[in-house]
Amino acid sequence: MKPRILEVRTKILKKNDELARAMRERFAEAGVFVVNVVSSPGAGKTELLTRLLADLGRDHKAVAVVGDLATEHDADRLAQSGCEARQILTGTMCHLEADMVEKAIEGWDLDAIDVLFIENVGNLVCPQGFDLGEDLRLLLFPVTEGEDKPLKYPTLINTCDAVAISKTDLAVAAEFDIETARANTERARPGVAMFETSAKTGAGADALAGYLRERVAAKRVAAIGEHETVG
Amino acid sequence: MKPRILEVRTKILKKNDELARAMRERFAEAGVFVVNVVSSPGAGKTELLTRLLADLGRDHKAVAVVGDLATEHDADRLAQSGCEARQILTGTMCHLEADMVEKAIEGWDLDAIDVLFIENVGNLVCPQGFDLGEDLRLLLFPVTEGEDKPLKYPTLINTCDAVAISKTDLAVAAEFDIETARANTERARPGVAMFETSAKTGAGADALAGYLRERVAAKRVAAIGEHETVG
Repeated sequence: MKPRILEVRTKILKKNDELARAMRERFAEAGVFVVNVVSSPGAGKTELLTRLLADLGRDHKAVAVVGDLATEHDADRLAQSGCEARQILTGTMCHLEADMVEKAIEGWDLDAIDVLFIENVGNLVCPQGFDLGEDLRLLLFPVTEGEDKPLKYPTLINTCDAVAISKTDLAVAAEFDIETARANTERARPGVAMFETSAKTGAGADALAGYLRERVAAKRVAAIGEHETVG
Repeated sequence: MKPRILEVRTKILKKNDELARAMRERFAEAGVFVVNVVSSPGAGKTELLTRLLADLGRDHKAVAVVGDLATEHDADRLAQSGCEARQILTGTMCHLEADMVEKAIEGWDLDAIDVLFIENVGNLVCPQGFDLGEDLRLLLFPVTEGEDKPLKYPTLINTCDAVAISKTDLAVAAEFDIETARANTERARPGVAMFETSAKTGAGADALAGYLRERVAAKRVAAIGEHETVG
């Protein structure tokens, strides 16, 4: 039985990879920078993302889609940033797949969009293998989870481009040692970009927004360059 | 393709269910009370479990197995309770399955054991469908995840017998409203047993240990009754 399960799993992943690749091409042509935000449940993705949307939304067309098993709270919360947000309900599915994102962004004029944030389902394992066509995978690692999480759950962090240590306002109460956490993160994913953020106080959100702003600009320059070469 | 995936998933679940049923019979014959502890990563399962093991271990033979993707820290931490604990390494697997538990408890004399705690992989979705032969499924819901989690992640909580709101020592710092959390928990899983615990201060751990102690005793009485009927 095991070989057959593996075969089916491989097929699901392959199908997802093919669609994600096609979406990445569409995003590149349209000049949309895409961020896949992953973490455990309750790590503060929605709250931090609302701040990032409001910040980038000042001079970019930024939008978001958000995946949850149930409830539509999070799209409403994200929309408080002033940016458009759509909910994806996954039912019992523990991660987002490329076809769910493709369906959720239907009808949006990608040429008019600069940044698309995808807030994944809260899960520190399963989103790992599912490419969503993103340019950047951002992992939130809240101080309330303890310093050891990058070592205990290496699978997802190993695929991330940036890590935001979140809820730093609770670091003292949670007796969280930021230096140990940074060292464990670096050990699990050498060279990964790291930020220390609190969505509650706003601390560090501007540094993360600045980093994203630079990445968005770099993609736009690359897209224009390619367009001129083609033209 | 979808029907084939469903078919394979159904087969995996069916195979797990059959093994879990056989294990439940073995546990019943030996008079072992089994608790499956589930939650998101970093909810404080290991720390609370260490307290429960130390408490129940005073007058019971209590043991534990713990699942993690990587590292063996948690079995070492649990063993500080004075009870025996074994690590299950799941690699990239996002939940425990019955065969992993069966393998982990090999060599233990079940007749001599009163309570077996199974600490699942930190994941608020995937452990849902995988019966481990347990008598009781205990979900930890930390105050740092926010009051809305029972509504946003109903899948796993819908299969739980008891919920321990954990890390209550951080409730004020996290601005967590316990009454809203209790109401949301009751809404997601009417009638579920609820406890408020802090593994750090020890608050509420004795009430939860007392509840488990009663359940263990009830199972032992049932096992003796059955034995006498058979004899």
